[in-house]
Amino acid sequence: MIDCQRVRRRLEKLSEIGRDPEGGISRFSYTEEYRAALELFAGWCREAGLNPRIDAAGNLVARYEGTDSGAPVIALGSHLDTVPNGGPLDGALGCVAGLECLQSLVEEGRRPAHPLETLVFVEEEGTRFGSGLLGSRAVAGKLTPAALAEMRDRDGTSAAQAMENYGLRPLAVGEASRRSSEFEAYLELHIEQGPTLDSESVPIGIVSSIAGIWRYTFRFVGEAAHAGTTPLPVRRDALMAAARWIPAVRDAALQLEGPGNVATVGHVDVKPGAINVVPAEAAASLELRAPRESALHRLAETVLEEARRIAAAENIGLEVESGARIAPVAMDERVILAVENACRRLGIAFRHLPSGAGHDAQAMAALCPAGMIFVPSAGGISHAPEEFTPWDQIEAGLRVMAETIQRLDQGDNSEG
Amino acid sequence: MIDCQRVRRRLEKLSEIGRDPEGGISRFSYTEEYRAALELFAGWCREAGLNPRIDAAGNLVARYEGTDSGAPVIALGSHLDTVPNGGPLDGALGCVAGLECLQSLVEEGRRPAHPLETLVFVEEEGTRFGSGLLGSRAVAGKLTPAALAEMRDRDGTSAAQAMENYGLRPLAVGEASRRSSEFEAYLELHIEQGPTLDSESVPIGIVSSIAGIWRYTFRFVGEAAHAGTTPLPVRRDALMAAARWIPAVRDAALQLEGPGNVATVGHVDVKPGAINVVPAEAAASLELRAPRESALHRLAETVLEEARRIAAAENIGLEVESGARIAPVAMDERVILAVENACRRLGIAFRHLPSGAGHDAQAMAALCPAGMIFVPSAGGISHAPEEFTPWDQIEAGLRVMAETIQRLDQGDNSEG
Repeated sequence: MIDCQRVRRRLEKLSEIGRDPEGGISRFSYTEEYRAALELFAGWCREAGLNPRIDAAGNLVARYEGTDSGAPVIALGSHLDTVPNGGPLDGALGCVAGLECLQSLVEEGRRPAHPLETLVFVEEEGTRFGSGLLGSRAVAGKLTPAALAEMRDRDGTSAAQAMENYGLRPLAVGEASRRSSEFEAYLELHIEQGPTLDSESVPIGIVSSIAGIWRYTFRFVGEAAHAGTTPLPVRRDALMAAARWIPAVRDAALQLEGPGNVATVGHVDVKPGAINVVPAEAAASLELRAPRESALHRLAETVLEEARRIAAAENIGLEVESGARIAPVAMDERVILAVENACRRLGIAFRHLPSGAGHDAQAMAALCPAGMIFVPSAGGISHAPEEFTPWDQIEAGLRVMAETIQRLDQGDNSEG
Repeated sequence: MIDCQRVRRRLEKLSEIGRDPEGGISRFSYTEEYRAALELFAGWCREAGLNPRIDAAGNLVARYEGTDSGAPVIALGSHLDTVPNGGPLDGALGCVAGLECLQSLVEEGRRPAHPLETLVFVEEEGTRFGSGLLGSRAVAGKLTPAALAEMRDRDGTSAAQAMENYGLRPLAVGEASRRSSEFEAYLELHIEQGPTLDSESVPIGIVSSIAGIWRYTFRFVGEAAHAGTTPLPVRRDALMAAARWIPAVRDAALQLEGPGNVATVGHVDVKPGAINVVPAEAAASLELRAPRESALHRLAETVLEEARRIAAAENIGLEVESGARIAPVAMDERVILAVENACRRLGIAFRHLPSGAGHDAQAMAALCPAGMIFVPSAGGISHAPEEFTPWDQIEAGLRVMAETIQRLDQGDNSEG
């Protein structure tokens, strides 16, 4: 039996590690706080009779052997690092839940056919080195020593150096990679981090896909001019063009059908940026997210057309720089069906939804059939100390997870 | 006779002082470059047989006595300080032209009824201490030692300290102030610094008034949110509200009738300003300029209404901070008429126009009837090394100025 009180106690214990003065949790990868959290977790694994190991990237792997020694692994997991001033559930819930699923089986003396593993991935958030999913990408074989040497934190320390200081061997990161044939499936329980489930009072979200992310800088280039002596009709005001474009960006995303298509202008850099000078340049950041590649293409096309149209109307130049481009990742149909049937069996309401945020499941999907179960985020709040999910909803998530594992283990496709 | 070649040579000589590596002129008040420019100018005054004095604020005063010893002064003037990387004409033209008007009379042995003075005002631009018209405000009796002690440059040096270092006595700044009864009129020749005269091919602008300036910060306050997981309809995007408001600001100014009504958003500060976070705050600078107080009131009201309307529609908070507020200053009707009639007499085309930029005439208008003559700025460019007026247009300005002085001196209101 899943012990919900134990999950609760463990999440509370974890939330004490890396507690920051602003009331949140700042627990960054490859730090002493991170090591303390991982050691606490490893202790719980040992308490459960599991013997955890740390791989070359710094991921923790706790394994419960199955009855079929040659069968591939059903893997569960998430991460223990946080954003600055983050909340107690993002990542930690999935780790503790994964361990709980293993431990409850151990305690009941039930042995699955497939081996089960709980994975605690390192550096999911990308807070420190500007690049996320480090641990899961290492397991998927997508992280090289060269990449680790290149990415740096604010102080100029490379990820490779940070790993070395932490006692790992970054040159051996390839040893963390595993073969596709080793895995049956990957399943991750996570908070939604958005308002959909909470606002619709649906306790379980089944993730259909993880959004792709396309990033840009749209630089509007006009001409600086005296704000007192330059009549409005002859100005070439770069900020005016950017301002007209920003609502057009939102309209373009709203015109697409289906959930999860969003566009955000998070920053505008105005030059020279003086109260009495007509802006010569306005560089706007743009982030597009959508669950489907086709939607990203359409969205990118529309916002570019709109920028060109407005720039021409305002007699403004336009320079577009493309930044990071992460492809959307569909979750596996068989895993989705197993979660659906688990919900039906347990009589728990669910809906399908895309994930707008990135997750370790994204990297693991390159290796094996992957799926995610979302529980509601109260008020849609995440990455903040107020991050919260009512305990009955966490319990529902745990029960659906355990039931899904059993179905994946037994190849059970029945609806009830 | 006005010697245009001499004016040209002198402007070229002055442009060599304070020349900066970027090709423009950076000649700031109370520096050694400024002293060199003023001493060059003083030498020209002595060459003309005038004995210049430096007043307590650092202004230069060159006087040519009239035949009527008790008559009030007809004053001419402008400034020799520049903005950073400024051009050769802004300010310098009016000083050299003023001296030329006196010198040509001296050379012709003609003595006006009224005494004539050429004033070279210090620190018109406000570049160094963030506060302009220091010299002309001192003459108008509007500058106190306390104010000089308070205003500081980037390095924390007060204007009072800078004056002291320069060899002046800031505590005695009051000695620079003069009585209203000392002056008959003030006349300033200046480049337009805007495109109106150049684009309409009109050689002379007669300034109707100097625009008032009202400054604000409009702070839109929303809520930071995850750019991937927060659906567009539930966002409270502060930048979205600011972006919708910026074109509404322009529309409000365009709706006002008459020239010179402008509104500028020169800067937007976005927080947190990350590519993947919905903006929580967007603080936009706003500057309104108009030749009439009533227009400023209407404009301020409209942009505030629009901000409130848009903020409400976007579920965004609004905080408005008022900044500097400078009243518009009308030029004197009698001086305007004298310039008009001078143009008619000389057969030179003119138009009336407001000045969107501030000028020493603004401070002098508090003391006596004041007027300004504008000559075209090629392409409307000013405050830049490319600042340029063709020599035939400068010559037209000089001739109109000399004719206007004669008319003011003789009380001549005839049209031809």
